[in-house]
Amino acid sequence: MPRPLVSLLTDFGDRDPSAAICRAVIVGIAPDARILDISHEVRKFAIRDGALLLWSALPWFPIGIHVGVVDPGVGTERRPIAIRVERGDVLVGPDNGLLLPAATRLGGIVSVVELANPAFRLSVVSASFHGRDIFSPAAAYLATGVAFEDLGPSIDPSTLVDLRIPEPVVGDGVLESAVVYVDTFGNVKLAGTPRDLETALGAVESGQRLALAIQAQSSRTVGLAWRGTFGDAAPGELLAYEDSYGRLCVAVNQGDAGATLDLHDDDRVTIRRASTG
Amino acid sequence: MPRPLVSLLTDFGDRDPSAAICRAVIVGIAPDARILDISHEVRKFAIRDGALLLWSALPWFPIGIHVGVVDPGVGTERRPIAIRVERGDVLVGPDNGLLLPAATRLGGIVSVVELANPAFRLSVVSASFHGRDIFSPAAAYLATGVAFEDLGPSIDPSTLVDLRIPEPVVGDGVLESAVVYVDTFGNVKLAGTPRDLETALGAVESGQRLALAIQAQSSRTVGLAWRGTFGDAAPGELLAYEDSYGRLCVAVNQGDAGATLDLHDDDRVTIRRASTG
Amino acid sequence: MPRPLVSLLTDFGDRDPSAAICRAVIVGIAPDARILDISHEVRKFAIRDGALLLWSALPWFPIGIHVGVVDPGVGTERRPIAIRVERGDVLVGPDNGLLLPAATRLGGIVSVVELANPAFRLSVVSASFHGRDIFSPAAAYLATGVAFEDLGPSIDPSTLVDLRIPEPVVGDGVLESAVVYVDTFGNVKLAGTPRDLETALGAVESGQRLALAIQAQSSRTVGLAWRGTFGDAAPGELLAYEDSYGRLCVAVNQGDAGATLDLHDDDRVTIRRASTG
Repeated sequence: MPRPLVSLLTDFGDRDPSAAICRAVIVGIAPDARILDISHEVRKFAIRDGALLLWSALPWFPIGIHVGVVDPGVGTERRPIAIRVERGDVLVGPDNGLLLPAATRLGGIVSVVELANPAFRLSVVSASFHGRDIFSPAAAYLATGVAFEDLGPSIDPSTLVDLRIPEPVVGDGVLESAVVYVDTFGNVKLAGTPRDLETALGAVESGQRLALAIQAQSSRTVGLAWRGTFGDAAPGELLAYEDSYGRLCVAVNQGDAGATLDLHDDDRVTIRRASTG
Repeated sequence: MPRPLVSLLTDFGDRDPSAAICRAVIVGIAPDARILDISHEVRKFAIRDGALLLWSALPWFPIGIHVGVVDPGVGTERRPIAIRVERGDVLVGPDNGLLLPAATRLGGIVSVVELANPAFRLSVVSASFHGRDIFSPAAAYLATGVAFEDLGPSIDPSTLVDLRIPEPVVGDGVLESAVVYVDTFGNVKLAGTPRDLETALGAVESGQRLALAIQAQSSRTVGLAWRGTFGDAAPGELLAYEDSYGRLCVAVNQGDAGATLDLHDDDRVTIRRASTG
Repeated sequence: MPRPLVSLLTDFGDRDPSAAICRAVIVGIAPDARILDISHEVRKFAIRDGALLLWSALPWFPIGIHVGVVDPGVGTERRPIAIRVERGDVLVGPDNGLLLPAATRLGGIVSVVELANPAFRLSVVSASFHGRDIFSPAAAYLATGVAFEDLGPSIDPSTLVDLRIPEPVVGDGVLESAVVYVDTFGNVKLAGTPRDLETALGAVESGQRLALAIQAQSSRTVGLAWRGTFGDAAPGELLAYEDSYGRLCVAVNQGDAGATLDLHDDDRVTIRRASTG
């Protein structure tokens, strides 16, 4: 039987000891658990970033218990929860929207509980570190075989806090979108998919010239080509492509599109076919 | 029987291979060891930061062998040591004060040895990488069951190098303190505890207004409230609270107090009740 | 029997989920594998940096399967490869020079295959994330016992892409060298070894004064001493020494030589004996 898998995603940072303390609490309760860190460098308090990273990562993970902690509301009445999903995983974290996109991607919610049972928390619960005191213990007890239902009372999934993730607007010949994430390569992830782009513009071949208009602090329009792969673009070339998660993405081959274009989270862009004139 | 646990804390950084080499040396000697990284992003050469991180983290760890390497004196005659503590852990690292606060917190020192036995070092010891050549091997051999006493000759604990950690000064109506650590959220950790504050000011309720005077490059005084939890503070509000380790802390709810107040390690502050006038 | 070891080095960064996805893919295929991260903070697209880090790290690792992904040519026709080396390890990654210095250091190449067998890739291979789709699966299948030869057709090692790593120029009384890496302490690693220095200058004792001439954006010459160890240098002193990998290195004791000297990758320097006059 494989060891139970517990993954961790937080905004605690790799310098401070908080992430390590979560790992240690899990190992103390569930010595057999296999811990896989997803990231502890999520932008501080950026629930949407954390949600997108979980959405990106978890489909590639074996079925397991996944702890997410980006939790600006710690110490308020926001509920600590665990979500069982269709694929068989359990997601553990705050009820602030962080877990929902990944839950949907893993087949949808089967049931939800509030982490209220003191038997499966640390004996003292602080006001500011529920990763240590509530979420990691819940995950670890699940890894030892504690029943999901024993963690606390059932919650109606329709009462969960949802995130407003920007949706693309598909127009006639134009796709409007927000920047939802800029990765550490500077690749700019947009709301929407290549399918949305094709719905707006019709079929686009690799090499098709596009016009990217940026509505940010200063408005401007740049030209770029749709590319099937980085390999079709020259080094330094600006391109639009489908990233490895199926998302629409603007990049500079071997460069940093975020810096080059001065594009940031929540900036709005439109994409059209470039005029041939 | 659970696998022996070896934790690692260094200032080697996550980019360079030094931390990975320590992990590899441990696995090579002790294939069963479970390695838990605490942090490799301790500020370079900042022995006190490392000591505070170990002090914060280790109480939450299972009993194990804990390697700490923040070692500006590597290559000098500073001694490589292992400390057995009352709880049953062994701390391994340089004799420069790094290990002592955690040793005290884990029940105090039982015995100390100098890591002088060449049987439990790598065969060649470099002048600048004792993490690889001395500390990781010592920890790994302990994990395989080597007796603590076999690592080298006993050392009188009273001869160990101690750190000067700033202590708060409790006055009549005023607490003077130094900044001892600013975490990656910008939360500013002070010397002293909420108990020290209450000794100075009398009982403080959540909502009590305080005056924080900063003696740094420029002197200034700001108002803030004592809060039982972040949840009692509005987003963006400056507050003082007890952090999850029992330490006195100044923060901005969902913000960065270190940046907002321009507060840094070793800056000195005083806290008084705010005048009502 | 010890668990099979799989190490990972990439430029994916610790914030984004790519490195975690590689770990997850490996665990999904090879639940018994022990994963050791070397670094995911290699400078983006810096093949030479990655090659030097693998060269530095792998000799200290147990025999295992080592995945390296610094891959600006992903999506082009550059080949995905696995290299079996004399020591018994297998190196997995792109055919762009990344793996060759480490292969040489582990005894040299025994055989090479192209990772072309679809049975040992993920079922869908993206154009931009071969770490997930090709390299991690190949390593994981090897860890489960798949034969090296089954990964794909044999490649003639002489056709592998090689890196041009700068070599030092040993003159009569002068050593010319390039900066090949600046580590996170600011220690400046040069092409060449202390042996090269002695070939150029004759025997150098600890304390020997040297003149370091820098040919970078602005030319300048600084004095420094050759030191057997940091411990022989005063805090803040500029020194040249043999680093713990046997490489020639310029450092500031407890300081940052890269910043102090404004020295960067590929800057060129010469070292001579300081004139006594």
